[in-house]
Amino acid sequence: MANPIITLTTDFGLADPYVAALKGAILTINPRVTIVDISHAVRPQAIEQGAFLLASAWPYFPHGSIHLAVVDPGVGTERRALALQTPVATFVGPDNGLLSPALPDEVREAAWGHDQPVPVRLPAGYRAVSLANEAYFRQPVSSTFHGRDIFAPAAAHISLGVPLAELGPPVEEVLALAPFRARRQPDGSLGGRVIHIDAFGNLVTDVRCEDLPAERPTVEVAGRRIVGLSLTYQESAEIVAVVGSSGYLEIAAPRASAAELLGAALGMPVLVRP
Amino acid sequence: MANPIITLTTDFGLADPYVAALKGAILTINPRVTIVDISHAVRPQAIEQGAFLLASAWPYFPHGSIHLAVVDPGVGTERRALALQTPVATFVGPDNGLLSPALPDEVREAAWGHDQPVPVRLPAGYRAVSLANEAYFRQPVSSTFHGRDIFAPAAAHISLGVPLAELGPPVEEVLALAPFRARRQPDGSLGGRVIHIDAFGNLVTDVRCEDLPAERPTVEVAGRRIVGLSLTYQESAEIVAVVGSSGYLEIAAPRASAAELLGAALGMPVLVRP
Amino acid sequence: MANPIITLTTDFGLADPYVAALKGAILTINPRVTIVDISHAVRPQAIEQGAFLLASAWPYFPHGSIHLAVVDPGVGTERRALALQTPVATFVGPDNGLLSPALPDEVREAAWGHDQPVPVRLPAGYRAVSLANEAYFRQPVSSTFHGRDIFAPAAAHISLGVPLAELGPPVEEVLALAPFRARRQPDGSLGGRVIHIDAFGNLVTDVRCEDLPAERPTVEVAGRRIVGLSLTYQESAEIVAVVGSSGYLEIAAPRASAAELLGAALGMPVLVRP
Repeated sequence: MANPIITLTTDFGLADPYVAALKGAILTINPRVTIVDISHAVRPQAIEQGAFLLASAWPYFPHGSIHLAVVDPGVGTERRALALQTPVATFVGPDNGLLSPALPDEVREAAWGHDQPVPVRLPAGYRAVSLANEAYFRQPVSSTFHGRDIFAPAAAHISLGVPLAELGPPVEEVLALAPFRARRQPDGSLGGRVIHIDAFGNLVTDVRCEDLPAERPTVEVAGRRIVGLSLTYQESAEIVAVVGSSGYLEIAAPRASAAELLGAALGMPVLVRP
Repeated sequence: MANPIITLTTDFGLADPYVAALKGAILTINPRVTIVDISHAVRPQAIEQGAFLLASAWPYFPHGSIHLAVVDPGVGTERRALALQTPVATFVGPDNGLLSPALPDEVREAAWGHDQPVPVRLPAGYRAVSLANEAYFRQPVSSTFHGRDIFAPAAAHISLGVPLAELGPPVEEVLALAPFRARRQPDGSLGGRVIHIDAFGNLVTDVRCEDLPAERPTVEVAGRRIVGLSLTYQESAEIVAVVGSSGYLEIAAPRASAAELLGAALGMPVLVRP
Repeated sequence: MANPIITLTTDFGLADPYVAALKGAILTINPRVTIVDISHAVRPQAIEQGAFLLASAWPYFPHGSIHLAVVDPGVGTERRALALQTPVATFVGPDNGLLSPALPDEVREAAWGHDQPVPVRLPAGYRAVSLANEAYFRQPVSSTFHGRDIFAPAAAHISLGVPLAELGPPVEEVLALAPFRARRQPDGSLGGRVIHIDAFGNLVTDVRCEDLPAERPTVEVAGRRIVGLSLTYQESAEIVAVVGSSGYLEIAAPRASAAELLGAALGMPVLVRP
C-alpha cells in the first residue's frame, strides 16, 4: 500500500526550524507518511491568503490525503483546533476560516459581506471534531506552537487510521470565509478582486471562468480596460486577461510582471462586463 | 524495490501553489515516487539558467531517475512537449532547449554562435517522443499550465513503467542550446562567460577544468586579473579562481561575495590565458 | 520497516543546485531514505546560527535519525570531517562547532567565554570517528564540496547500517560551541543575547525558561523594559516576553515584527532580572 500523504500550508517561512519541527513531530508518530509542502510563504497570520493557497493546491492531491494548515494568530487563546473530514480528504488546523477550502462554496456564501469568518453548519457527508483529547497531543504542549504539539500529531494519528471521534468531541459548526468567487452585481457585471499575486507578477482574481460572460468580456482593473480573453500568456504584446490554470481569471503581461506594470495590490477591485 | 525518483526544476518559485499542484498531479498517478526539488528559483522564463541548474544536479541522481523540468514561456503555443530517454535517465519538459543537459556536448555544439536553440538529431542510444497522446494528460488541460496537466502526468506514467512509445509519436530532432563550455580562441585562450552566480556570490563560469591550461592560467574577469588556481575557497585573502564542485571554473572571495566585490553579472565575459 | 531519516541543515540556499546534488548523492547510495530539510537558510558560513537551527529542530525527529549539517568555511583545509553518535541520534558534518547540539550543555560549558569553539572530550555513551576512509567517499572528491562527496555519502552509508568504525578512526575530542544558555551574573540577573530572529520578527534569546526567576521577571532589551511574561503572542497590544515553543525566552509584538519595532539585531544583549 502506498504511504498516506500529509500536505503542509503555513506562514512559518523556510528559514526557521518550525517547518522541520512539524515534520519531525509527524514522522515520530508515523514515519511512513509522504509529506508535501504546499506553501510556507503565506504572509504572517494572513488567514485568507493561506486559505486561497490551500484551495489552489489540495484538489490536485489523491483522495484520502490529509491537509494540515497552520496560520494561527490566535494560538493559545480559545479558538478551537479542528480535524474536518470531507467526502474526499481530511483537513487539520485552527478554526479561524483557514480550513474554508474544505467546504462547498454554497456553504461559504453565508459569509458574503462579512469581514470576518462566520459560523456555518457542516453539510451532509462532512464531519468535524474539536481536537481536545490530550492523549493525542505532543507533551508538553507549548502555548505558542500548537502546529507542532496538537495539529501535527492529530494529522499523523489520522494517517495511522485513528478514527476522528477518538481525537475529540464532534463539532456541528465551523468558521468559514466567503468563497473565492466574484459576485454578480445588479447591472449584470461581476465585481471581484485581486486575491493573489504570483511569482511571475500575474494578478489572480476571484473571477471564476464559469461565471464569465459567453460574449467577449471586458475586464477593468487598475484603471486599465482589457477587451476579450486570451488563450495563452504569449498571445499579445499587451496586458492580457487569461483563464488561469486553477480556473480563475488572471491579468498577465507577456514576459513581464503585470503587477508591476499596473501598480496592482492584493484586494484591488476587478470588474467584468459582458 | 526502491521507489522511482522524479526531480523537479522550474521557475515557479516556492511561494505559489504551482509546485504543490505538480507534486499532487504526480502522486495522484503514482503515490510511490520519491520527488526531489532541484530548484524552483530559475528566473521567470530563463530557459538557459534552468538548463544550467538541471545540468549541475541531474548527474548526481541514481541511474533511471526521471528529470521533469518546466521553464515554459511558450506554454499553450505550438512548441512541442517532450519525453527524452538517454542511456542513463529520462527527461520530460518543453522542447525549447531546457532539456539540453540530457544531450552530449558534441551534439550541442551545433548551437555554437546561435542565440536561440537549434534543432539537432538525437544520437544513437537516445530516443524521444512528442507528448501527444491525450489519454495520458490530466483532464481538462489548462492552456497555461502544461506542467501540471501534461508534463507531470507523463513523468508519473513513465515512473509506473508506461513505455515512451505509448505517450506519443517518435521525434528525431530536438532543440538544443550550445554546451556550457568556453570556446578556444584562435590565440589559444579560452573565451567564456559567467553562467551562474550562486548564493555565496561565487561566479560560476562555463570554463571547464579539463580545458584549463596545464601551466598556471591567468583569469581575467570584470577588469581583474587572477594568476593561478587555488585549491580551496580559503587559500588566500584575495579573490581567487577555483575549480568548483561541478568542474567549472569559479571566481570566489574568501568569506565574501565575489559578485558584489567585482560588480559582476550573468553573461559577463571571462578570459583564460595560459 | 520504516525508511531511515536523514535531515539536512546547510547554508546552501534553495536557489542553487547544491542541495539537490547532496540529495542525489544520498539517494544514489540509499534510495530508501526519507530526507527532510531543517533549513538551508543559514547565513553563508555562519556556524553558530547553523548550530542553533539544528539544535531547535533535531530533538523533534525520531530516535535513530541521522542529522547531516554542512556549514563549512574550512572545506578543503585540515578541519576534520566527523560522524558523531549519541545515545539517540547520529550527526555528520565538519568538526567546527556546528555539531555542538549533539552534545550535552554541561560538556559545552567548557567553551564559555571563548569566541571560537574549543576541544571537548566526548562524554560516556557518545562516540565519533573522523571520516577518513576514502572507500566511503564519492569519487572524485571535490576540494570545495565535501558535503556532496564526503558527508552525504557517510550519512547514506550509516543509514544502510555501515558501522561507524568502518568510516574512519575514532576521535576522542571534538570542537564545541558554548551552550545556547544565558549565564547567571554575580548580581543574580541573567545575561543573554538575541540568537535568532525568526520570520515573524520575534527575537529568540538564549534565556531558557527553566532559568527564569519564579517571580515576575523584568526583561531588558534594546532599551526597552518588559515586566512579566505573557502566555501567548496575543495577550497584549504591546511588546511582550513569551516562552517560545523551544523553551527559549522570546520578545514578540502581537501581529507585528518586534525586530523592526525595536531595531534589534543578532547578538544584541538581553538582561533578565527577578
